[in-house]
Amino acid sequence: MPGTFKVGLLGHGTVGAAFARLLRERADAIVPITGMRPELAGVLTRSQGSFDELLEHSDLVVELMGGIEPARDYVLRAMRAGKHVVSANKQLLSQHGEELWACAREHGVQLRFEGAVAGVVPVIRVLQESLAAARVERVHGIVNGTTNYILSEMARGGLSYEAALAQAQQLGYAEADPTDDVTGRDAAAKMAIVARLAFSTPVHLDQVVYEGIEHITADDIAYARELGLSLKLVGTAERVDAGISVRVHPVFLYGGHPLASVEGPFNAVTVESDAITEVTLSGPGAGGPQTASAVLGDVVSAMIPPASTPATTEALPVVNEIESAFYLYMEVADRPGVLAQVAELLGMQGASIRSVVQKGLGENARLVLILHPLPESRFYAAVRLIGQLDFIRSAPRAIRVIDEEFT
Amino acid sequence: MPGTFKVGLLGHGTVGAAFARLLRERADAIVPITGMRPELAGVLTRSQGSFDELLEHSDLVVELMGGIEPARDYVLRAMRAGKHVVSANKQLLSQHGEELWACAREHGVQLRFEGAVAGVVPVIRVLQESLAAARVERVHGIVNGTTNYILSEMARGGLSYEAALAQAQQLGYAEADPTDDVTGRDAAAKMAIVARLAFSTPVHLDQVVYEGIEHITADDIAYARELGLSLKLVGTAERVDAGISVRVHPVFLYGGHPLASVEGPFNAVTVESDAITEVTLSGPGAGGPQTASAVLGDVVSAMIPPASTPATTEALPVVNEIESAFYLYMEVADRPGVLAQVAELLGMQGASIRSVVQKGLGENARLVLILHPLPESRFYAAVRLIGQLDFIRSAPRAIRVIDEEFT
Repeated sequence: MPGTFKVGLLGHGTVGAAFARLLRERADAIVPITGMRPELAGVLTRSQGSFDELLEHSDLVVELMGGIEPARDYVLRAMRAGKHVVSANKQLLSQHGEELWACAREHGVQLRFEGAVAGVVPVIRVLQESLAAARVERVHGIVNGTTNYILSEMARGGLSYEAALAQAQQLGYAEADPTDDVTGRDAAAKMAIVARLAFSTPVHLDQVVYEGIEHITADDIAYARELGLSLKLVGTAERVDAGISVRVHPVFLYGGHPLASVEGPFNAVTVESDAITEVTLSGPGAGGPQTASAVLGDVVSAMIPPASTPATTEALPVVNEIESAFYLYMEVADRPGVLAQVAELLGMQGASIRSVVQKGLGENARLVLILHPLPESRFYAAVRLIGQLDFIRSAPRAIRVIDEEFT
Repeated sequence: MPGTFKVGLLGHGTVGAAFARLLRERADAIVPITGMRPELAGVLTRSQGSFDELLEHSDLVVELMGGIEPARDYVLRAMRAGKHVVSANKQLLSQHGEELWACAREHGVQLRFEGAVAGVVPVIRVLQESLAAARVERVHGIVNGTTNYILSEMARGGLSYEAALAQAQQLGYAEADPTDDVTGRDAAAKMAIVARLAFSTPVHLDQVVYEGIEHITADDIAYARELGLSLKLVGTAERVDAGISVRVHPVFLYGGHPLASVEGPFNAVTVESDAITEVTLSGPGAGGPQTASAVLGDVVSAMIPPASTPATTEALPVVNEIESAFYLYMEVADRPGVLAQVAELLGMQGASIRSVVQKGLGENARLVLILHPLPESRFYAAVRLIGQLDFIRSAPRAIRVIDEEFT
């Protein structure tokens, strides 16, 4: 008879319920892997159960409550009591990660969190284990399935942002209050966690610059498609001269980029390092069963070997002044010299033009430019001046472009 | 001062030399992760060094010699001496895996082998750890970069097989003797290892059916492209009614399939399971630095926690009679009733036609069909009869199609 391994579950929402079901279904298959049969010790919800009692009867605690408190308090108490913890709580880890990881190291327990970032896409394990010895240069990620679904529908059907969001809500891909997703804040929390692991430097959610997709129009997507570009909400964590940069914003990708073909409610992450060029991981974004599967993978790993998140070994500054390539969309009166004047203002800031699309005539013309990379502050300085030209009909619209050739 | 962890290296070819270099470069970065500094204890080649002496001074042995003997003997002796082993030897693991894994379990040591399958694409770790608790239904993989490069060039430039192979050899993507790659045998060894892990059932290289790309023509690729198909050498390991099926053959993929966009000397693997739908991992195929990076990831993991390949828990039969969709290419004399006669012979075997392309006139016409899935034996029975029809000008050509819609 194999021994029993008791799992205490905090939270019984979509993911919690899916996890409880999956644990029951897969318990037999886990015995030969770990030598023990996992079993639910009990479930604590906000309205029901005693944490102390659950803790006493658990070998490991799975935290799927979400939010900061009481999740933080429970996770700390569990680790101080010598129990391993598996959590899928991105808000908690991106705001209190260092405190939690330090507590895990101090008490010699594991704190695993694959489910916190990209559902079943194993970005945490790959960064912490497969690439533990690699010097990561950059991570690009589509880590929010809701916004990727909305942008895919806008591109596919020419839907407006509002119509695509409504459709996502109807299909259960977006919540009634989609603020965290569409503003980029959800992705920012995930990228803070990713950056912490990739660069072994502390990164707090507050240090991540983010921008959402609420202002994107179907027009932006249609014009850019003529230039071979597709639009995604991309989180980027990368080494720059002065330290690291961690940010989330809508970005255009050229066709060959590994993230360009990720459609619908999917997640995908690309990790770049000199030794490996790049690895891409993709799969369905966080849904209940997918996240539950990632959590169960963590539980199984915790049942076998000790492993812990090492202390940060770097203290790289998180910087915000970086270089980007840009898409610039202008509604202009079509007069001689329009392109020349715009180009001159850009040139004064060191911007150079990669491609141009001009459409329409008379007072309703459109001028769309793609620029080669330049410091963002210089780009925005040029845009301010361009906005004051008398032939500009409405505020110029700027969207970043990931300007890499993949073959 | 951190302690030293001694790594004995067997083999000093492309991967061995890249590993030795990478270990030196990354030693400092590994200290905070593992608490120890890894260091080369020595290098054994076929012409130089004593295995016994190297073993005595090593905490872990890295086997990058390739081939069966003496690699098998060395790996067994190292594990019997209580040392962890990391190997990238697909031939050894696909033919003697059970003996080696049993030995590792018996002596309580780790045998890790990420580098044996897809270079830096972490398919082994994901199957063994992230998806340890999932019931895997199917794995599709492009696990040979040489053949994927050749097929990509045939599609891109309309090159013949021979010309694309010569180009691959010139660029170092194919060896002087490319037999193992182009016949599918290299991919078959890798799929045997993947199937063993995915289904926890013993799988020997001899049980894997494989077919290469030597007979593929640029015409096949051009015709199929009109039907939205791209050609890849795909390894498949899947559950079927009677057990499992493990095979490698050229296959057409529809555009939305996650493997369809994998171009050049890249590898990619898709793992399907009910709970997760599917996860795709992709990156550069086995080159020296990439495989070395996978090997180093294994070394770091071995320095931290115990983990072992569990004994197989299933003994599923490996079956060869499966269903496939097919592309069927025929050179025909263009007379009335040609399509009707072909369709009748197919229909007698239960085949149904999904799409048709007809080209050319008179004695040099082409008839290309895509069929819905049917048992392979029934399909080939129909093809034999079709080959005897008097208007058929040369042997019909058949290539499998992965007939799944991805959105």
